[in-house]
Amino acid sequence: MMKLYSYWRSTSSWRVRIALHWKGIAHEIVPVHLLEGGGQQHQADYLARNPMAQVPLLELDQDGQRIGQSMAILAYLEERFPEPALLPGDPYLRARARQLAELVVSGIQPLQNLSVTQYLDAQGQDSKAWLRHWVGRGIRAFEETSRATRGSFCVGDQVSWADLCLIPQLYSARRFGVDLSEVPALLAIEERCQATEAFRRAGPDQQVDAPAPL
Amino acid sequence: MMKLYSYWRSTSSWRVRIALHWKGIAHEIVPVHLLEGGGQQHQADYLARNPMAQVPLLELDQDGQRIGQSMAILAYLEERFPEPALLPGDPYLRARARQLAELVVSGIQPLQNLSVTQYLDAQGQDSKAWLRHWVGRGIRAFEETSRATRGSFCVGDQVSWADLCLIPQLYSARRFGVDLSEVPALLAIEERCQATEAFRRAGPDQQVDAPAPL
Repeated sequence: MMKLYSYWRSTSSWRVRIALHWKGIAHEIVPVHLLEGGGQQHQADYLARNPMAQVPLLELDQDGQRIGQSMAILAYLEERFPEPALLPGDPYLRARARQLAELVVSGIQPLQNLSVTQYLDAQGQDSKAWLRHWVGRGIRAFEETSRATRGSFCVGDQVSWADLCLIPQLYSARRFGVDLSEVPALLAIEERCQATEAFRRAGPDQQVDAPAPL
Repeated sequence: MMKLYSYWRSTSSWRVRIALHWKGIAHEIVPVHLLEGGGQQHQADYLARNPMAQVPLLELDQDGQRIGQSMAILAYLEERFPEPALLPGDPYLRARARQLAELVVSGIQPLQNLSVTQYLDAQGQDSKAWLRHWVGRGIRAFEETSRATRGSFCVGDQVSWADLCLIPQLYSARRFGVDLSEVPALLAIEERCQATEAFRRAGPDQQVDAPAPL
């Protein structure tokens, strides 16, 4: 069975978990605690698997085959398990779904990454202001960019990679105190996604490594 | 004819330029000056095209169709112009090529983005130390991660997205004073890539908007 190295609150892991549930792919979650003991992702055995010291990481059934980077994992899953599709069939709309996904993946998430805020904190910087600035700017650009294609979901009426990337990002935006009143269309899409079982099961609070509720 | 909004020294634009030349796709370059007059990417007419205020942006022959985000553009070009391929045929190797590409695209480049270093500079921070830290860490992880698949190029003996992303990143690493003696395998790949016409023509110094040589 495939294994996904994951952290409950990692937005990159979360994207991949939604795809696994959406497509009904049997998998085992291997939790990697990003904070405990200085971060399990920095331990030698994990670094040997992924020198970037990041989750998610997909370990295939085939011996020793591993794929890192959430977008590379999503593309692999799409090719190996094409149905139900998480990209539109039309070439231009596929490109727009990927554009919105990358707006989050390379345009927002790297700047909120734990290693980045830890670096800023160590320099005595205001990492909270940093987070609000970059995440807010990105989320507003997402609302604007998705205007051309939005239906019930980010691209028409089918769930795509754009939604898989958006929903975890909205959760982080809330954590960081970003004002979401400026992105009403995204909040409506979030509500529709969260009503599905795949999104619900992939959420942080449903993970084996989530802290027990108070 | 397709138009590519590009900046001569933007590594994200550069990746796409290599693909256009590699596949022999007729295109027109529209320069967007990221520094002049506070940055042309922040002007209203460009923002209407791309609310993220970033290059590259591909404008298709079809009226009004635009694709932002370099990886979304590369995927679109791969689907529309499959030959010569810039991804391996084997599903696992395709995934590894994408992983290496994303290691640069979401793991390194966002942290060296002009808007980020401008933000740090405005806060009186040491953006040069920041750049050396993040770019150095990423480049070393790329050397390590590519070990499993390297041949003449990053994934076997065919040029792929991994090489398209690596070569511009090495140029930036040099600009930022990163010590490249620790990544000898990447330097060897760079030499092979730079010997090809497509890589040469896509380079910053070959662009219409590059400053005249001294």
